[in-house]
Amino acid sequence: MQTRAVSIRISPSELEAFAAQTMRSVGIRDEDARLAAQILVTTDSWGVHTHGTRQLRPLLRNFPVERLRADAVAEVVREGGAWALIDGHHGLPFVAAVRAMDMAIARAKAVGVGYVSVMNTSHFGAAGYYATRAALAGMIGVAICNTDPQMAIPGARGKVLGTNPIAYAIPHGDRPIFFDIATSAVAANKVIRAKNLGQPIPEGWLVDGDGNPTTDPSSFPETGALLPMALHKGYGFALLVETLAGVMTGAAMARQQPSWVVGVPGNPPGYANQGQVFIAIDASMMLSPSEFDERVDWLADYIHEVPKAAGSERTFLPGEMEWDRRERALRDGIELPPDVVESLFGLAEDVGISFPFAANSE
Amino acid sequence: MQTRAVSIRISPSELEAFAAQTMRSVGIRDEDARLAAQILVTTDSWGVHTHGTRQLRPLLRNFPVERLRADAVAEVVREGGAWALIDGHHGLPFVAAVRAMDMAIARAKAVGVGYVSVMNTSHFGAAGYYATRAALAGMIGVAICNTDPQMAIPGARGKVLGTNPIAYAIPHGDRPIFFDIATSAVAANKVIRAKNLGQPIPEGWLVDGDGNPTTDPSSFPETGALLPMALHKGYGFALLVETLAGVMTGAAMARQQPSWVVGVPGNPPGYANQGQVFIAIDASMMLSPSEFDERVDWLADYIHEVPKAAGSERTFLPGEMEWDRRERALRDGIELPPDVVESLFGLAEDVGISFPFAANSE
Repeated sequence: MQTRAVSIRISPSELEAFAAQTMRSVGIRDEDARLAAQILVTTDSWGVHTHGTRQLRPLLRNFPVERLRADAVAEVVREGGAWALIDGHHGLPFVAAVRAMDMAIARAKAVGVGYVSVMNTSHFGAAGYYATRAALAGMIGVAICNTDPQMAIPGARGKVLGTNPIAYAIPHGDRPIFFDIATSAVAANKVIRAKNLGQPIPEGWLVDGDGNPTTDPSSFPETGALLPMALHKGYGFALLVETLAGVMTGAAMARQQPSWVVGVPGNPPGYANQGQVFIAIDASMMLSPSEFDERVDWLADYIHEVPKAAGSERTFLPGEMEWDRRERALRDGIELPPDVVESLFGLAEDVGISFPFAANSE
Repeated sequence: MQTRAVSIRISPSELEAFAAQTMRSVGIRDEDARLAAQILVTTDSWGVHTHGTRQLRPLLRNFPVERLRADAVAEVVREGGAWALIDGHHGLPFVAAVRAMDMAIARAKAVGVGYVSVMNTSHFGAAGYYATRAALAGMIGVAICNTDPQMAIPGARGKVLGTNPIAYAIPHGDRPIFFDIATSAVAANKVIRAKNLGQPIPEGWLVDGDGNPTTDPSSFPETGALLPMALHKGYGFALLVETLAGVMTGAAMARQQPSWVVGVPGNPPGYANQGQVFIAIDASMMLSPSEFDERVDWLADYIHEVPKAAGSERTFLPGEMEWDRRERALRDGIELPPDVVESLFGLAEDVGISFPFAANSE
């Protein structure tokens, strides 16, 4: 019990083994459980704990109520020269997503670009994982997803579109440049945290139930809604994601989309039906691989060497902080913050296994 | 002379004829001049005057100094199943861009996705034009371009990356949904206008020469720099554009990129060498065309019908205001603002033809 409110330091391999064990205990195949564990722990090792193993407890709660199915096998339902559409059949979302990105990579090797969508699927963790997977294979990788509405649009009140994330990655040795954002100004959990602490939030994050901008987080999530990043620009990107991932694939769109989380008030029964798109573009199809590498190195050096702002010591490539954190995690272990520890502890309880990790002695 | 400081109302066809005449007078082939005139006047008809015929004067000034060549013919230099790379050979940029998008559309018809880049090219006007061209052919269209640096990145001072625009369009009858943005918080000309008027600018637009956020526009463009939209998010999108349009194509990258405008202080001699990417994705490859149309109509209706914010009467699809303006322009003529009139008047002087339009009598 003393583990609940403290951080713990843990080796990535131990955390992977634990995560896989919890998945097997709800009937997930060993191979699928290992793949999903590797994705979630990679995400934790980047320091992106919002999308790492903390997501496993709410995700696995979908299996007993049959919103996800351990025995499902994703299936290609339609395909063409550069593209394919996969029906995830509500199986473990990570598995369908990896299969889709790997197919996109294979198409890109053949024709330069690969574009593979998945429908009848659910929360796949961090979109950036799939993008970096492509980048490590020499591809520009893109991963997007439509989600249940959390975000207002200009002129509206209430939740209209999901935070519809966009991730990309660019080959750059074993540390791809990568970028993974919500199209909202901030993530919902930042607003919730401020609300729980009774603190005001910056302008530009939220509108209240009347659609008026507010610095008071108390209306969220009941009636308030997140604002898009850069207002009409974030709205435009979210609508593109809704079109590619939702409209084009047959997935649920906008308010049709239930939350992937079980038990959210107002959540309709039945399956979540997210749509996801995985794109791979052969990075060196137009120039040679060595020319591409030289040119991306030039751009990376340029970003690092530009004159710094007053008080700034470094400029970062997207994803660079995450790779730095992963290096430390592989060397010293991952420092899991208290909310993740609490979630993993509850996960162990949910699936009926013992929680194997001791709290930090520090 | 009285035309200089006033607006004029003009029919699109007259404006097209004038624009084409100015281009022919610097040696541009009639067919190319007509195509470019149609693009620029379509842009004016949308009310996007920053990227319409006002751009023609600075663009044509590249021909006498041989930064652009009227006799150049764009050439496919490398290609594969879903993609091609075009060398623009520094010809009229609109022509190479249309050829590239039309090739992308053809590839998408064959394999689902088409991806065509152009290098050795220059300013192509509004990226949104090319995206809508694809949408009118049943494709999701995307057009991006790397430009000369105007924008700081987080932690830096000075101009690091271009405003690197991103446009997309989605098929929706004869009024595609379309979106065309700079990855900076605002366009440079908004800062310049405030500077000329001696007015402060909102926070989030600019950093001064030390990289500190400022509401004083006086440092731009000499030492100040635009801020990316939503800070690290806009930086991430701009870097993706720099990679796809610059790194991958062989175009000039970041500070290597001269302004396309002749005579900008510090502009290196020789050609601008922008890179551009045109993507077409068959919108109905995964579902049937009628299913796609029904689903995009559902999304459009949904956007229009969501509850409105206090004081708001309508919610708009991206591009909807532009199509409304175009409808009015086709019916009543285009109202060209004074800065456009002044530029067209100067253009006529530059190329030695008479300025044929009378000022508004209103």
